[in-house]
Order: sequence, then C-alpha cells, then structure tokens
Amino acid sequence: MTPGATPVNAADDFLPLIVTSPSGAGKTTLVRRLLARYEDLVVSVSVTTRAPRPGEVDGRDYHFVSHDTFRAMIDRGAFAEWAEVHGNCYGTSLEKMVEARAHRRGMVFVIDVQGARMLKARVPDAVGVFILPPSFAELEARLRNRGTDSEETIARRMKNARGELAHYGLFDYVVVNDQLDAASEELNAIVLAERAKRWRRAQAVERVIHDGSAR
Amino acid sequence: MTPGATPVNAADDFLPLIVTSPSGAGKTTLVRRLLARYEDLVVSVSVTTRAPRPGEVDGRDYHFVSHDTFRAMIDRGAFAEWAEVHGNCYGTSLEKMVEARAHRRGMVFVIDVQGARMLKARVPDAVGVFILPPSFAELEARLRNRGTDSEETIARRMKNARGELAHYGLFDYVVVNDQLDAASEELNAIVLAERAKRWRRAQAVERVIHDGSAR
Repeated sequence: MTPGATPVNAADDFLPLIVTSPSGAGKTTLVRRLLARYEDLVVSVSVTTRAPRPGEVDGRDYHFVSHDTFRAMIDRGAFAEWAEVHGNCYGTSLEKMVEARAHRRGMVFVIDVQGARMLKARVPDAVGVFILPPSFAELEARLRNRGTDSEETIARRMKNARGELAHYGLFDYVVVNDQLDAASEELNAIVLAERAKRWRRAQAVERVIHDGSAR
Repeated sequence: MTPGATPVNAADDFLPLIVTSPSGAGKTTLVRRLLARYEDLVVSVSVTTRAPRPGEVDGRDYHFVSHDTFRAMIDRGAFAEWAEVHGNCYGTSLEKMVEARAHRRGMVFVIDVQGARMLKARVPDAVGVFILPPSFAELEARLRNRGTDSEETIARRMKNARGELAHYGLFDYVVVNDQLDAASEELNAIVLAERAKRWRRAQAVERVIHDGSAR
C-alpha cells in the first residue's frame, strides 16, 4: 500500500468501546463525561420494539421500530446482540457501528454484562471496560438513594450484581467507581491510551518511515 | 488466598514502563513530566563504570561503580541489559527494579531502542512506549537546534533513527511527539490505563466479590 493512501481497513483507527457494570455502579454518568471529553466518539443507541415514553426521542434514546422491522434485522444479522424483555425486543445494531466507522473515531456501547459478553464475541477488537462499585454495601446504598426502585427490585439487582461481577474476566479494564472524578479520569485515559496502541498507530509510523509526516 | 491478604506476587500491581525513542524525539522531557504527575513512579538509574562528570550525582544521574563491581553484577545476572561504549560499561539493573517493587508502584526505564529490546525480553510484563518524531525532517531540525552535536554526530543519529524506527513493532504503544502537551497527556494516560488493566485489578475485584471493599 502507498503510505498516506486510504487504509484498506478504515477500522484500524476506530475504537469500539464497551462500558458495562452492574446496575447502579455509575456507567451512565461516566459515559456522559467521556462523550463530553471526546467529541469524535458517538454512543450506540439501542433498537427497540417498545413504544416511546413521553419525552423520549427517536434516534437519541432509542431507535424505535416495529416488530416486523426488528425481525427482519435479526434475519439479516444486523444485531451484535438482542434480547426479549417482557414482550419487547432490544438490540444493539452492528450496522450503526459500520456507519459510524466512516465518520467517527469510536463508538461507545453502554450495556449490561450479558449484552456486553455477546457484543464482545461479535466485535473481537472491541475494548471492554468493567465499572466496579467499591463494595456491595455501597452499591446497595446507591440503588436505594436513587429512589426509583422497589425493595424487591433492589434485592433482584443486588442478586444480579453478584452474578455479573463473576464475568469481569471477559473485560480488558476494570475501573473502580469510588470517587467519580478519579473514575472518570481513568475511563478517559483508557480511550487516549487505546488510541496510542501500536497497531492503531501503525499507519502513522509507516508514513514517518517513508519520510512523510505522522499527522 | 484470603482476600485482602498480601498478594503472593506483589508485582501484580507494579508497572515496569519502558520509554524509548530515537535520539532527539523528546523522551527525556516527556518522562520528566510523567514523574511530576505520578509521585509513586521512580525512574531507573543506569549503572556505569565511567567516571562522574562535574555536577553528576551518584544514585541520581548514574550509579557509578568500578569495573570489578560491574563484572560481578554481570556474573550474578544483575542486569536486564548492558553494553560497552568507548571502553565504558553501562547497564540497567534488575535488582533495583526488585527493590522498587517493595515500595513504589512503577519504574520507568528511559532507554535507547537496542536496550529496550533486551529489557523487554528480560521483563516480559514491561509495557513499552515508543516515542515517534512527527517526521525525519523535524527530528533533524530538533537535533540541530539542540546545538550540542556536530554535523557528523547528527548524520549518525539520523542514520540510527531510521534503523530504530523499524523496531517499533516490539512496543505496546506509539506516542507521536508533535505537540508536547498532547504527547505528554498521552504518555500519562497510558500509565493510568495500564493500572486499570483487568489483571492488575484482579485482587481489588476479588475483594469486592468476597464483600470487602475495592480500595
């Protein structure tokens, strides 16, 4: 390949980033800060068959589709992972990631542990970050402080969290969300470091070796 | 092992960081900034048989030793790598790294590409960062601007740089030192991200799973 030419695989410089955690560990807040820091990252928006709730915007909160459309997407392999919950389907679109590769430098998937496991299997070069609560006691306190869940839901989430933690071995990084600022700095650093990985910089090095410029 | 007990291998949390580059690419300045940012990192001080120059401090600039001592260190395998240059020996001590593991969180090795290659072979868990000049033209301009090297030395350094760049594949990260602030932020991020690597956090996760605290 001529140095400086369009890369054969544009994905070389693209970062698929999976951010997962038990419910209540703080992944949503951390990702909001990450997106504010890196404008060339975009978040993956899930596809769902459920009806929009008041205030929800199509394409921002979810891609709202019919059951027929969802079924057709399954059939053509459009999903990295999907699941049915209480009669509604939710899925993570691989097609949207392919679109994003053309004009963004990365896509962030904020997803539960089960979904992250499936996504990682479909996108092997995805970088997985597991957000860890500092302790189960703290996690329970946070779920209770949100004030949105019943005692029964909290008990279920805590039981799930114990099962989910056992899957941390599938992920590349573990960020302990004890102090939000420190955890946020770590997550941001992971993106910067991953972009400096040698194989993602290989084309820049080749350009210097061939006496062009690295930028 | 009981969660929270002293780890069997204290090195789990220790980061050996190799920073290498062709001469003039800026590794010294970047590492000075890195050490200012992370006080729990220490820089590896080379061992040499050459005499101290005016102003040089033993233990800060070099560990100054006799030829006999150096020879004894070679014989007991004390060096990760060593070389003889113009009749003087220079070496990187593995023993100092073992000492540092006891009370520091990492050791930075600022070293040329040949030495880095040997060091990486001896310390397989070391993380290698290759500092890349933005172009050969810029590298030559920087060497000339230093005003310390003769034209002959500059020509030799440029020839070496071309050979050294070909070894970048041995390293984990490539940082392009185009803008100093951006390059410095990247190098600092690499340390933060490496510390969040799953296997370095495994004991913290195990403590949470066993219902202690992650910190």
